[in-house]
Amino acid sequence: MKPVKLGIIGCGIAANKLHWPALKGMENKFEIVCVCNHTKPKAKDFARTVGGVPYVLDYHELLKMKDVEAVDIALPIELNYSVTKDALDSGKHVIVEKPLACNLSEGRKMSGFPKKYKQVMMVAENFRYFPTILKIKECIEEGKIGEPYWVFWNNFLRISTAPTKWRIKHKYPGGFITDGGVHNMAALRFLFGDITSGRALAKSINPKIGKMDSMSMQFSTTSNVNGVFNCFFSANGNLENRLTILGKKGSIVLERDTIFINRDQQTFREAVAANNGCKGEFENFYYAIREGQNIVSNFYEAYKDLEVIITAVESAKKGQVFYL
Amino acid sequence: MKPVKLGIIGCGIAANKLHWPALKGMENKFEIVCVCNHTKPKAKDFARTVGGVPYVLDYHELLKMKDVEAVDIALPIELNYSVTKDALDSGKHVIVEKPLACNLSEGRKMSGFPKKYKQVMMVAENFRYFPTILKIKECIEEGKIGEPYWVFWNNFLRISTAPTKWRIKHKYPGGFITDGGVHNMAALRFLFGDITSGRALAKSINPKIGKMDSMSMQFSTTSNVNGVFNCFFSANGNLENRLTILGKKGSIVLERDTIFINRDQQTFREAVAANNGCKGEFENFYYAIREGQNIVSNFYEAYKDLEVIITAVESAKKGQVFYL
Repeated sequence: MKPVKLGIIGCGIAANKLHWPALKGMENKFEIVCVCNHTKPKAKDFARTVGGVPYVLDYHELLKMKDVEAVDIALPIELNYSVTKDALDSGKHVIVEKPLACNLSEGRKMSGFPKKYKQVMMVAENFRYFPTILKIKECIEEGKIGEPYWVFWNNFLRISTAPTKWRIKHKYPGGFITDGGVHNMAALRFLFGDITSGRALAKSINPKIGKMDSMSMQFSTTSNVNGVFNCFFSANGNLENRLTILGKKGSIVLERDTIFINRDQQTFREAVAANNGCKGEFENFYYAIREGQNIVSNFYEAYKDLEVIITAVESAKKGQVFYL
Repeated sequence: MKPVKLGIIGCGIAANKLHWPALKGMENKFEIVCVCNHTKPKAKDFARTVGGVPYVLDYHELLKMKDVEAVDIALPIELNYSVTKDALDSGKHVIVEKPLACNLSEGRKMSGFPKKYKQVMMVAENFRYFPTILKIKECIEEGKIGEPYWVFWNNFLRISTAPTKWRIKHKYPGGFITDGGVHNMAALRFLFGDITSGRALAKSINPKIGKMDSMSMQFSTTSNVNGVFNCFFSANGNLENRLTILGKKGSIVLERDTIFINRDQQTFREAVAANNGCKGEFENFYYAIREGQNIVSNFYEAYKDLEVIITAVESAKKGQVFYL
């Protein structure tokens, strides 16, 4: 099968740090034919980085190129809706960075795109392709911890200064909670199904990184699992990323890249190959285009991830229980 | 000053494992003059344990003894109200095991006892005397972590079979959640003030240990700290007891008996002398009787601890937000 001819729109952090490192080893699947950024230096630099391809400053030009089969959209979140729509209107397959959209109204419209367009479309939600998350799903399905009944995810991070202007003056509710938290929500929904209700409390500790940076959310799922998602971006002195799943016969703890099954008894410990899932997501995109493979991280799922986070963020202002 | 002449009512686990080990080294403060249990073998055994003192089977007899100045009530929770009242009516000072009462109606009446009786009365809530909790309070007050804004307490324990019949067929809502969780709530309120609102979700995983054994509670406090209290008694394979406090300038983590301040930077680590607080509580009782010292673990505080837990337990059935 021939490589997919790909245009990359947006030459910022996601393109440089996440997508390019994944695409670099996949020359048999993707051929980057053009890149685009509205500022010339970034476009030029990235064009050189990916092997000296042409670059344009206006994405409409890229969409007009007949040899571009698919586009990778890695732009500020508020542009996802319009650029994705334009790309689909021009007949391109689309992979677009998470979160799907900057508000639920645009997200809802996008979740309807699969009915309107025939092309492949997916969201670059790498948590759905994390080796650790896939392994945990397998362990649960194999019954290693019995029926799971409660999940806790502590995401205690520290972001002192945001790397991008659009992240600070964010045009979407929740700031880093939405931008970062949607990842964890994708994994939680992937493992335990839809969120049916919940309640969140939130604070803004460091206004320099946006309007909200600290949220604790309680939730229930369709698979009868309850959970707590702690999403903190101004933590200090005790940073951790720990997922704990209590099951009726045992427990799973994920700390960074290590999975512990029944940690106390040390029956199982596996350091899954550290891998951010980006390669898996591009493989899914490729096989969907060439062989009709199902998209795991589709627009519907991405909309549902976003719906939970934005609903939680909004309801946190009043401390009300939300129902989905 | 002369030792306080003490009668102990109830010769079960609390008397044997918590109170006696504390009283053993305090002969200059307490002289045990009589013990009481309604079953003879337990009364006889405990009377021998504490040095061969007389025992009775009916606590009314003990209350009639003129040389008994104070009583230590360590009975099933549902007896706390009536025995405490009888003891106060008979003129004795009272220390009674936590939780204060088996329901809020009796608890509320007991919280009014200080207005009705002149004697010293206190609840044996050892968490208010834990060296680790006192040290954490000191660290916060010294500004070591700046303004605290969120607290998380993970109490993942495993109780397979309950040691006492009255704990299994419990006459108080919440089972182990109430009996055990009231300790953590005492410490949380001691550190961060009253709970103003919250929401809890609960499940029963192992009905053999009571009607409810797993609860996660979200809350807000008068000191503008939000929190999550995870109280799980049927955890499996990942037991932990970890208190995490996020402050604007740093964090505190308590794991069992070790306090970490800014764990990542390892600026401070102190293994506070392991001590269950029981000695501290009896010292407070003694100095209150002999010198008029204030009781830290008074009936009002114990009622407020219980109020939060029972309100959370009851509201968890419907997943409603509660306000206090």
